[in-house]
Amino acid sequence: MSDKLIKKPTTGMKDILPQEMEIRDYVERMVTKTYASFGFTRIETPAVEHIENLTSNQGGENEKLIFKIMKRGEKLDIQGASSENDLADSGLRYDLTLPLSRYYANNSQSLLMPFKALQIGNVFRADRPQKGRFRQFKQCDIDIIGDPSDLAEIELLNATTTLLLNLGFRGFRVRINDRRILRAMGRYAGFEEDRLPDIFIVLDKMDKIGIDGVEAELIEDGYDSGAVTKYLELFRQIDDTAEGVKKIGEILKDDIEDGVIEDMAEIFHAVGDTAADFRLSFDPTLVRGMGYYTGTIFEIEMEEFGSSVAGGGRYDGMIGRFTGQDVPACGFSIGFERIITILMDKGFKVPDTAERTAFLIEKGIEADRLTQIMKEAKELRESGRIVLVARMAKNRKFQKDNLEKAGYTSFRDFYKD
Amino acid sequence: MSDKLIKKPTTGMKDILPQEMEIRDYVERMVTKTYASFGFTRIETPAVEHIENLTSNQGGENEKLIFKIMKRGEKLDIQGASSENDLADSGLRYDLTLPLSRYYANNSQSLLMPFKALQIGNVFRADRPQKGRFRQFKQCDIDIIGDPSDLAEIELLNATTTLLLNLGFRGFRVRINDRRILRAMGRYAGFEEDRLPDIFIVLDKMDKIGIDGVEAELIEDGYDSGAVTKYLELFRQIDDTAEGVKKIGEILKDDIEDGVIEDMAEIFHAVGDTAADFRLSFDPTLVRGMGYYTGTIFEIEMEEFGSSVAGGGRYDGMIGRFTGQDVPACGFSIGFERIITILMDKGFKVPDTAERTAFLIEKGIEADRLTQIMKEAKELRESGRIVLVARMAKNRKFQKDNLEKAGYTSFRDFYKD
Repeated sequence: MSDKLIKKPTTGMKDILPQEMEIRDYVERMVTKTYASFGFTRIETPAVEHIENLTSNQGGENEKLIFKIMKRGEKLDIQGASSENDLADSGLRYDLTLPLSRYYANNSQSLLMPFKALQIGNVFRADRPQKGRFRQFKQCDIDIIGDPSDLAEIELLNATTTLLLNLGFRGFRVRINDRRILRAMGRYAGFEEDRLPDIFIVLDKMDKIGIDGVEAELIEDGYDSGAVTKYLELFRQIDDTAEGVKKIGEILKDDIEDGVIEDMAEIFHAVGDTAADFRLSFDPTLVRGMGYYTGTIFEIEMEEFGSSVAGGGRYDGMIGRFTGQDVPACGFSIGFERIITILMDKGFKVPDTAERTAFLIEKGIEADRLTQIMKEAKELRESGRIVLVARMAKNRKFQKDNLEKAGYTSFRDFYKD
Repeated sequence: MSDKLIKKPTTGMKDILPQEMEIRDYVERMVTKTYASFGFTRIETPAVEHIENLTSNQGGENEKLIFKIMKRGEKLDIQGASSENDLADSGLRYDLTLPLSRYYANNSQSLLMPFKALQIGNVFRADRPQKGRFRQFKQCDIDIIGDPSDLAEIELLNATTTLLLNLGFRGFRVRINDRRILRAMGRYAGFEEDRLPDIFIVLDKMDKIGIDGVEAELIEDGYDSGAVTKYLELFRQIDDTAEGVKKIGEILKDDIEDGVIEDMAEIFHAVGDTAADFRLSFDPTLVRGMGYYTGTIFEIEMEEFGSSVAGGGRYDGMIGRFTGQDVPACGFSIGFERIITILMDKGFKVPDTAERTAFLIEKGIEADRLTQIMKEAKELRESGRIVLVARMAKNRKFQKDNLEKAGYTSFRDFYKD
């Protein structure tokens, strides 16, 4: 018993205490219930994925942050190994999108079409530890697979905004854009197609450096100043409403694929017109980093938190990497950990929690009496109450103070005869 | 897009389909609700643990089945490595008991005493793949830390039997024994103290080879035949009721620690007397493999399944490995995956599921009409119904048949004008 073990969790991971866990459980129940009402069904994939899938260039920067799992038994050849990949056969998933694509490819014959999936699960990234960012954290994704139409976007947006409203949030802003509008704007201004990804990286900084900053950086990067002026003039002309969508459609009519503007207008109509207590906002500066997006992209921002609390979009190409055939797909991921942090900071209390009673029992109480007490506890529990049965401590005041802190509001003391 | 990825999950792990997930979610909700009514609070520990803790001889055979995680960056020295442990700094947890002990040691100052914890989480074992056994599976443990009295055992037994009853199980058998009774019986028969663990390994086979088989094996192993006869006579003399407990207490009065029999009698009184639809059974042949148990041990058996569906006991020494001070602890773990398998095999239906309606919408419907449909869907969802909004498929009969299989009972079709 002398060789002590390590008490702290591994670097960048955390133990979750009861108070936080109560809020997490509540949010998870609300997520499941709200999304279920939209016909999303929960699924689960293993936390461990094939190393080949994890390192297939689907995950961008996240692929540098993989926790790799060592081969076992005879397959592990330490002497003969020259690189990491000789030693690892799998790793922990860094998101839920790649496993969902594998899941769909593996099980599509058993699934309803279109398939509406809800995933709640932990993902793992060996990121540099920093405040508020952990190496294991929960993600919560909804995805619609097999619906090429904008009904998928409408349902994702309605479901996620309903969830946030159910959790008590108000006044948030849903930003929406389309990768095809982004590209068409670039083409319209006269940029070359293959330079567009680099231009979007600069555009993405609009929030921080403003339109003048973007202009300066594009000029510095050597883009034609006429094209830069024409490009940025677009952003000055259009507002973030359905009117803005209509206007950009007129400007880009020769540069954009058929149906893109019409779908965006329909999304504005169906989501924006039913929007209560939040704002749907067309934002042509929205880029979103992941390379796999092919159509609409969206993000939800809350002032309380500064950065986004949810994001997603259409990724029609990814599932094809598994099946060999392109399958339309569109998803929305809420930042579970951020929402928990905001709720904890607000001092959120879980509504409608059961009343808590503590039965405190003196040591040495008679067996018949104990059996009777257990029966009483059982009846109260069946009536919906939480009943803690515990030995009476020597310092009863200390014990009761602690129980009160833990939410116990009534006490019964049982003494031996 | 030509390099296809791997569709199947990694060896021994599984994708969980919506039908199973619905049952898992229901069981998890019932677990959380039932245990909460007994004052257990949920906690969570990371899936990743320090390799030093995982390989500290707490986990018995499970330590051979660890998924080890490779060091990263500069810390990984492949050329200089001569053994697995030079390459790994952590691994996936193989149970929830070791992480709980670490958690308690790390957080005890923030926790209510005694601490009643509920954990529901995945654990990982690189076991040989076989039917019904997976390398990632869910465990569900309750533990009471800091209560040295038999009130802990009584609450654990009451909570777990209540849970099984709430899930609809009847007629199961709760077997209970005590490591100290096991040892006292061995001493009474005249075996040497240090041979007892080997004798228990043989005793543990009673179920399979019968009392004559145990006798033959003990004789073959070279134990004194007089001691063997005296030992096995004990098992013939005592029955599995409170009377049996009383009788073994009288026989062992000079060989057993004070209080052990009294506590066992009290447990029988408090649990057995309130037992409805299940049986509490004193079983002096119950051994349970884990070396860390120090007092009471228990298991629940169901005829439907053959083997045990829950097990646990008192392990007063383990937390001391982290804190340097012994802390009393007692836990009960239900076999989550076994319970799911039994329910699936029974054709279990989740009770009180919401009614499901599908709105099927023809392509090209007017935007105003679509907005109106979304409003109707919203109202129905708010009234507690599940509403799926989907595009009408070309083959409507096929679409409806599939929706009916997925539990949709009513349909509304919306055509464009």
